[in-house]
Amino acid sequence: MNIKKIGSGTYKIHGNVSVLSCAAVVGDMEKKGPLGHCFEHYSSDEYFGQDSFEKAESYMQKEAMKYAVEKSGYTAEDIEFIFAGDLLNQCIGSNYSVRDTAIQFFGLYGACSTMAEGLILGAMAIDGGFASRVIAMTSSHFCSAERQFRFPLEYGAVRPRSAQWTVTGAGCVVLGCEKTFPRIRHVCPGAVCDMGIKDMGNMGAAMAPAAALTLKRFLDDTGTTPEDYDLILSGDLGEVGYDLLKNLLSHDNIFLGNNYDDCGRLIYDRKTQDVHSGGSGCGCSASVLTGYVLPKMRCREYNNVLFMTTGALMSPISSLQGETIPGIAHLVHLQNDGEVEAQA
Amino acid sequence: MNIKKIGSGTYKIHGNVSVLSCAAVVGDMEKKGPLGHCFEHYSSDEYFGQDSFEKAESYMQKEAMKYAVEKSGYTAEDIEFIFAGDLLNQCIGSNYSVRDTAIQFFGLYGACSTMAEGLILGAMAIDGGFASRVIAMTSSHFCSAERQFRFPLEYGAVRPRSAQWTVTGAGCVVLGCEKTFPRIRHVCPGAVCDMGIKDMGNMGAAMAPAAALTLKRFLDDTGTTPEDYDLILSGDLGEVGYDLLKNLLSHDNIFLGNNYDDCGRLIYDRKTQDVHSGGSGCGCSASVLTGYVLPKMRCREYNNVLFMTTGALMSPISSLQGETIPGIAHLVHLQNDGEVEAQA
Repeated sequence: MNIKKIGSGTYKIHGNVSVLSCAAVVGDMEKKGPLGHCFEHYSSDEYFGQDSFEKAESYMQKEAMKYAVEKSGYTAEDIEFIFAGDLLNQCIGSNYSVRDTAIQFFGLYGACSTMAEGLILGAMAIDGGFASRVIAMTSSHFCSAERQFRFPLEYGAVRPRSAQWTVTGAGCVVLGCEKTFPRIRHVCPGAVCDMGIKDMGNMGAAMAPAAALTLKRFLDDTGTTPEDYDLILSGDLGEVGYDLLKNLLSHDNIFLGNNYDDCGRLIYDRKTQDVHSGGSGCGCSASVLTGYVLPKMRCREYNNVLFMTTGALMSPISSLQGETIPGIAHLVHLQNDGEVEAQA
Repeated sequence: MNIKKIGSGTYKIHGNVSVLSCAAVVGDMEKKGPLGHCFEHYSSDEYFGQDSFEKAESYMQKEAMKYAVEKSGYTAEDIEFIFAGDLLNQCIGSNYSVRDTAIQFFGLYGACSTMAEGLILGAMAIDGGFASRVIAMTSSHFCSAERQFRFPLEYGAVRPRSAQWTVTGAGCVVLGCEKTFPRIRHVCPGAVCDMGIKDMGNMGAAMAPAAALTLKRFLDDTGTTPEDYDLILSGDLGEVGYDLLKNLLSHDNIFLGNNYDDCGRLIYDRKTQDVHSGGSGCGCSASVLTGYVLPKMRCREYNNVLFMTTGALMSPISSLQGETIPGIAHLVHLQNDGEVEAQA
């Protein structure tokens, strides 16, 4: 059997798998950040009118899905699958956000790598002939994440300089088999990579090796170099992980230039917003992708983009038990032009 | 585009997607239950030689994967993807079990529905031409589940009669594109179904409506009746959910007979083992499938089986916040014979 695999683990999407529409919903701090003008949907109430942070997070996903589906020109009945997940225990952000739809649902857990994980599985479902249209979405919320992973906000715990700030935001993408753009051209799922980092206050260091593994694999498999892309965007490595990724890849003679950036660096202004190493959380890459990158691709400001989300796969329990932090990075290659080889 | 969809949401697997091998690893109580003779790999130490219950759970998955891959005749290098998840916060059972492999990994969260969710995504990946071989696996552990979802064991909390006993067990399946049997012929992913149940001590009631939705959909879509199958097996509805599912379906004139059973009813002897409504947990359906059902299909005792796992998608936090419990049920149709229409 000829499978759609290139090299050691990049997969070519043969047919049309296109972004039909997308939407982001963010919180107050994200709206006030450097990408604020990109975010149409936001709330200055961190509860989003709900009665808990967890319900607020779920509400953001629901809203993002509503806006994205509306913009796609389709209704929920036209969509086969939802791929969604989040950081909350048992992924309640997603489980409750999809409760009122009748769309068949695949729950994911990829920590902050979830947005690309969902896009990969969605693209595979469409290209494999199982769906005409799918949704990929995810979210995070600063307040629900802090109390679950770290300390209740009321403690006022001091964070190390390497720590990141969980983005309050959700992003939703509707993918379809239509001939439009941007299209998903390749996907490169991640393998777990654990370099022995144990510091929960330094996620960038835990995730950077996984990002290096996936990006190197993709470039090797496709025979391309970083210069071939308008933008290479990692999910939420933050400042620490951003530097580390560049450093790690340089040992393999891969040099990331000005076309490389990280969603966690873009979403906040580190001079005026006290976010230490930058943004993090599933909602970081999801809102930057849906609010900033995809709209810029639609107006052809970017035409060839690598979107790579990174996840730290530990839990507070595993860390208390002395475990290291495994990382993972999933990559999606988005392109506006180029030939499509075969229609599924 | 012609997608592989039948009716409202059943998907036909056109090529060969076969079970190459499988393995179960269980705990002491499961070994002493009515299916004990089916379980080759077990431990009477609930820690499995590890220093925490969570690490024990992860170890079980790792062992199940090792045995399943060995039996497949392949090595890890021949396998493209792992689809895995579990009940632990941030799915650490799975994340740590796959850490030492280089296989590309998709983390799932489907609560106790994870085994069929992984099989569905795995079958779609192979049939869609993205993989030659994949792994689907999951686990649960009584002690890690009790302390996370309910009370520390030391409290000796009294459980209601409708409560279930989380199975200590893991199951792993290797799927491949080889012409062998049993094969996956159809898949029917679940949609979320929430009938307003709030009682965390009655998961069977929370999940039964989702099971009814998926099974009715599959039977309608394929134009088949329950009598057409040698075995219809739900994941972990337990006694309460088993009765409810039969009752719910009877209102639609679907009558489940003696060929219907539930993994949660099969794995323990309710007369001698104090498990109340029966077994539950991701490991319940996973170990019954891999220890009991698939071997019985290999020796043609069963030839045509519906395997439907059910998940309760709440968390302790959502329940404390007064939320209801959404359910989901994913179905896989396994068959030994019958024509394969197209090889991918």
